[in-house]
Amino acid sequence: MSLISKDSSKDSSNDSSQDSPQVSSQDTLARLAAVIDSRRGGDPDKSYVARLFAKGPDAVLKKIGEEATEVVLAAKNGDASRIVAEVADLWFHTLVALSAHGLKPADVLAELERREGLSGLDEFALRKMQQREGESS
Amino acid sequence: MSLISKDSSKDSSNDSSQDSPQVSSQDTLARLAAVIDSRRGGDPDKSYVARLFAKGPDAVLKKIGEEATEVVLAAKNGDASRIVAEVADLWFHTLVALSAHGLKPADVLAELERREGLSGLDEFALRKMQQREGESS
Amino acid sequence: MSLISKDSSKDSSNDSSQDSPQVSSQDTLARLAAVIDSRRGGDPDKSYVARLFAKGPDAVLKKIGEEATEVVLAAKNGDASRIVAEVADLWFHTLVALSAHGLKPADVLAELERREGLSGLDEFALRKMQQREGESS
Amino acid sequence: MSLISKDSSKDSSNDSSQDSPQVSSQDTLARLAAVIDSRRGGDPDKSYVARLFAKGPDAVLKKIGEEATEVVLAAKNGDASRIVAEVADLWFHTLVALSAHGLKPADVLAELERREGLSGLDEFALRKMQQREGESS
Repeated sequence: MSLISKDSSKDSSNDSSQDSPQVSSQDTLARLAAVIDSRRGGDPDKSYVARLFAKGPDAVLKKIGEEATEVVLAAKNGDASRIVAEVADLWFHTLVALSAHGLKPADVLAELERREGLSGLDEFALRKMQQREGESS
Repeated sequence: MSLISKDSSKDSSNDSSQDSPQVSSQDTLARLAAVIDSRRGGDPDKSYVARLFAKGPDAVLKKIGEEATEVVLAAKNGDASRIVAEVADLWFHTLVALSAHGLKPADVLAELERREGLSGLDEFALRKMQQREGESS
Repeated sequence: MSLISKDSSKDSSNDSSQDSPQVSSQDTLARLAAVIDSRRGGDPDKSYVARLFAKGPDAVLKKIGEEATEVVLAAKNGDASRIVAEVADLWFHTLVALSAHGLKPADVLAELERREGLSGLDEFALRKMQQREGESS
Repeated sequence: MSLISKDSSKDSSNDSSQDSPQVSSQDTLARLAAVIDSRRGGDPDKSYVARLFAKGPDAVLKKIGEEATEVVLAAKNGDASRIVAEVADLWFHTLVALSAHGLKPADVLAELERREGLSGLDEFALRKMQQREGESS
């Protein structure tokens, strides 16, 4: 049985986000998230994700800080394939952090949809501007 | 004309990733990326993204560092809705960085697919372990 | 009364680190730390540090993430005066975080001394290597 | 010959910051910086710092991102000795980055002095506030 078919079946049984029309359960992020969920409690010697979970909640957060810095470095170096690889690492570790909190990539995509849906990115912009100004006042 | 219809039309004309079967051009990330692409060179007073681009390449990278830290803080605080919002912010800004380098979210998803496809997450695990061990030797 | 004389007097009364021979109470970091300590509970409209404290414990940690990224960007840009300014910002905000936890820069300097004292930087190197290898096994 | 005596002698010959009255050449940071400078070009198998330099300029910047995240995690965990250890790690790696650019901790301390000297931390506060407001407008 392939990873993918296993994940798809798992997906349909416990994916809380299946009511989001834009996010197919076949989608890369949802499938990866299902693999990650399935690794929780797994053998740390066989799976990187199981090992991350076994190390406790700070381990994946530390990786998010690391990978964000690596995205910055790759971008400054202008190395396109490295940017793609480091963003993949960063997204991957955010999926692990989401999983650790019982959250799904669809929750994040729904939040991005919501912002866009309300009023395009202008709502997002406005929110950020106001947040910024609130911070500095 | 809604943002979404505008983006969809733009999408079909210049989205290099339309040959990736798993990533629909209707997909949230692809659509957001198209909006972001369309903001380049736009009026910095009307769009947050246009303003980010106008500030130069470091501005979005600085945001990636900031938002990664905010994901860490939200996770440590165990605040689910905040985690979702901060991961959304982080992904959003990585989309802007990808756009700044002519890259697409589909490139990142393809990289994640590739890793998974080769041998599940074990290939990913192994790569990371070897990288780590290489670093410390 | 100057900031410096006020801080010096404060220093002698509550600086737990005055028994560290290498760190003079006249030292820049100790003096800055004393100023920072004195700002706790101060008027957020008059002092940046008082405002940081008033925002709660996450505000300064968020700044540490931001400033670390700015150090990385300044270094990649090879801009010496910017590197100095950003490292100053980063150290400054770590002093605020130390203060928030009742800690002093002398505690950090003592830790650096301790590592160096044991066996030069080799002890430090070894510790880090072993930590790394432990992480990836 | 101990590391410290070697460093002190090195210090007096090439420390550009010896005219700063508050920063003794005996000072922990200056001494560490001298050790770090002396490791450039050294044997990567014998010294952690030599290995960092040998890996190229991004390696230490990556560590700065990592260690900043670890400071954030230690602070959220409220673990005082861990906060001290992680701030020590962070400062240490900023010293390596300064060294890589021919800069000294005294340059950073002088910048911190300058800000304080002009008008206490209010000048610093004001600068940051204005920067913030400039960013969001």
